[in-house]
Amino acid sequence: MLVSEKRFLVEWGDCDPANIVFYPRYLKWFDACTTGLFAEAGIPTAALFKRHGVIGIPLVDLKVRFLVPSTVGDVLLARSGVLEWRKSSFLVQHRFFKGDILAVEGVETRVWTGCDPSNPEHMKSRPIPAEVIRSLSRPRGSQA
Amino acid sequence: MLVSEKRFLVEWGDCDPANIVFYPRYLKWFDACTTGLFAEAGIPTAALFKRHGVIGIPLVDLKVRFLVPSTVGDVLLARSGVLEWRKSSFLVQHRFFKGDILAVEGVETRVWTGCDPSNPEHMKSRPIPAEVIRSLSRPRGSQA
Amino acid sequence: MLVSEKRFLVEWGDCDPANIVFYPRYLKWFDACTTGLFAEAGIPTAALFKRHGVIGIPLVDLKVRFLVPSTVGDVLLARSGVLEWRKSSFLVQHRFFKGDILAVEGVETRVWTGCDPSNPEHMKSRPIPAEVIRSLSRPRGSQA
Amino acid sequence: MLVSEKRFLVEWGDCDPANIVFYPRYLKWFDACTTGLFAEAGIPTAALFKRHGVIGIPLVDLKVRFLVPSTVGDVLLARSGVLEWRKSSFLVQHRFFKGDILAVEGVETRVWTGCDPSNPEHMKSRPIPAEVIRSLSRPRGSQA
Repeated sequence: MLVSEKRFLVEWGDCDPANIVFYPRYLKWFDACTTGLFAEAGIPTAALFKRHGVIGIPLVDLKVRFLVPSTVGDVLLARSGVLEWRKSSFLVQHRFFKGDILAVEGVETRVWTGCDPSNPEHMKSRPIPAEVIRSLSRPRGSQA
Repeated sequence: MLVSEKRFLVEWGDCDPANIVFYPRYLKWFDACTTGLFAEAGIPTAALFKRHGVIGIPLVDLKVRFLVPSTVGDVLLARSGVLEWRKSSFLVQHRFFKGDILAVEGVETRVWTGCDPSNPEHMKSRPIPAEVIRSLSRPRGSQA
Repeated sequence: MLVSEKRFLVEWGDCDPANIVFYPRYLKWFDACTTGLFAEAGIPTAALFKRHGVIGIPLVDLKVRFLVPSTVGDVLLARSGVLEWRKSSFLVQHRFFKGDILAVEGVETRVWTGCDPSNPEHMKSRPIPAEVIRSLSRPRGSQA
Repeated sequence: MLVSEKRFLVEWGDCDPANIVFYPRYLKWFDACTTGLFAEAGIPTAALFKRHGVIGIPLVDLKVRFLVPSTVGDVLLARSGVLEWRKSSFLVQHRFFKGDILAVEGVETRVWTGCDPSNPEHMKSRPIPAEVIRSLSRPRGSQA
C-alpha cells in the first residue's frame, strides 16, 4: 500500500493543563493525514471530490491507542496508508512516531459519500472508483 | 440594541499549559455568540441565510482586549449586541464577564455575504436587509 | 452506574465544508462529558486532582462509532457513565442522541495519573481511590 | 527586526460550511507563529520560560484585519516579527500571504508573565530580559 508521511510540531495551543497534547488534536491530525495521503497518491481530494460528485469522506468508525504522551516542541512523524478497501468504505491507518517510538496508532473507517440523487440535501454512500483504489495501493514513489 | 446572553463553562480542553484559556477559544465563542444573537432576534442564521441567499457573515476586522484570564471550571457570561450598522457590514460587540468582572471584550466587523451572481464560486458583500437590522435593534424581550 | 447528561448546540465553527460536524469536535465534547460526569458525582476534577495528587486522566484507548451526522443548529444530548473499573484505569461510555436517534457512541479508556514520585517531571498511573469509584457508581440523584 | 516565516496548509478541518477558514483558526496560527519567532531567535520558549521563571506570554490585546478568505488546499506564508517593545509587554505583528496577496494581518500585545512571588497561584507581569529583546531585534540569519 501507499504510505504517506507528514510531520507535526506540537504547539502550545495543542496542549492542555497537564502539559500534554489534548487528545482531540490527534484526530484533527488524522484527518489532515488522510487528506495528505490522497494528495500523495496524486488525487487531491478537492479536485477528486468535484470530479466524482463526492462531498466528503466522513468517518463511521474510529479506533485509537494513545501509547506515549507528547508535549510542546515535540515533533511527530505520521505514517498513513489504507489498510483495507470495502465497497464504499475504506480503513485508513495512522501511526504517529516520536523518534523511534510509536506514540499514537489509529484506524479510521471512512465512507465515500455523495449527494443522494433523489434528495440533494441528503448524503449517500457510493462505490469507491477503481482509479482511487489503484492510486492509493501502489508503492510510494512509483509511477502514478 | 438587542443584547443576547450566553454562558460558557471553561473546559479542560479550552486551557493551555499555563492553565488559562488558550485565547483562540474566545474567538470561537465570539462566533457562537453572534449566532446566538441572531437566534435571539428570532432570525436563526441558517434559515435567514437560505432566504436571503447569504452564505455567511465573514469577519473583516477584529479587536479584542483580554483583561482577566480564566481557567478550568470558570463560568463566563457573554453579552453580545450590534454596536453599529453600515451598508453591508456591521459591528458586533462581545463582553465576557467572570462574575462582576469584565474579562474579555471584543468587536467583530462582519460582512453580509452572498454568492457573486456573475460568478457563483466567488463571494460578494450585499446590503443588509432592513428586517435584519430591525430585529437586531429592538430591546430584548420586546415584540418581534 | 451514575449517568450524567450534557447538551451541545452544534455551532457553525463545529462544522466542516460538507456542512456536518468535523469529527474531532465530538472528542472534545467527550472530554467535557467526562469532566461533567465527575462534577455530577460531586467530585469536581480540579479539586479531586489536587487532593489526590493527580495531574490528569489521560486517554489510552478510544473507540467511536459515528452513526448519524449532525449539522449547524442541531442539539445533541450526551449521556455518559463509567462502564468498567480496573485497577488504575476506567472505561467511560458516551452516547450522543439527536432526538431519539443514537448519533455517536464511544468508549474512552482513561488512566488515573499522578506525578512519578521518583521523577516529578514524569507521569505515572495510580490506583483509583475507592471513594471515586463509589461516587461514580451510585444511581443519579441518590444520596452522595 | 527579526522576521520569522512559517507556512500553513489550510486543511479541511480548518474550514467552515462557507468553505473558508473558520477565523479563530488564524489566531491559533498566530500563536504558533509567535512560538516560531522565538525559536528562530534561538530562544525556544519552553527553555526560556524555565530559565526566567516565566509561565507564558499571554495576550492582552489583539487587532486583526481579514482581507482575503482562504480555503482547503491554500498555502499561507506567515511573516512575524516584534513591532514594539515595552517594559513588560511587546507587540507581535503577523502577516499572512496567499501568493503575493496579503490575506490576514494582525498585531498581538503579549505580556511577559511569571508567577507572583507572593502568591505562586497567581500570575504577574515581569520586565522583559534584555537578551530576549536583543535576540528578537537582530536581522534574520545574523550571528546570534
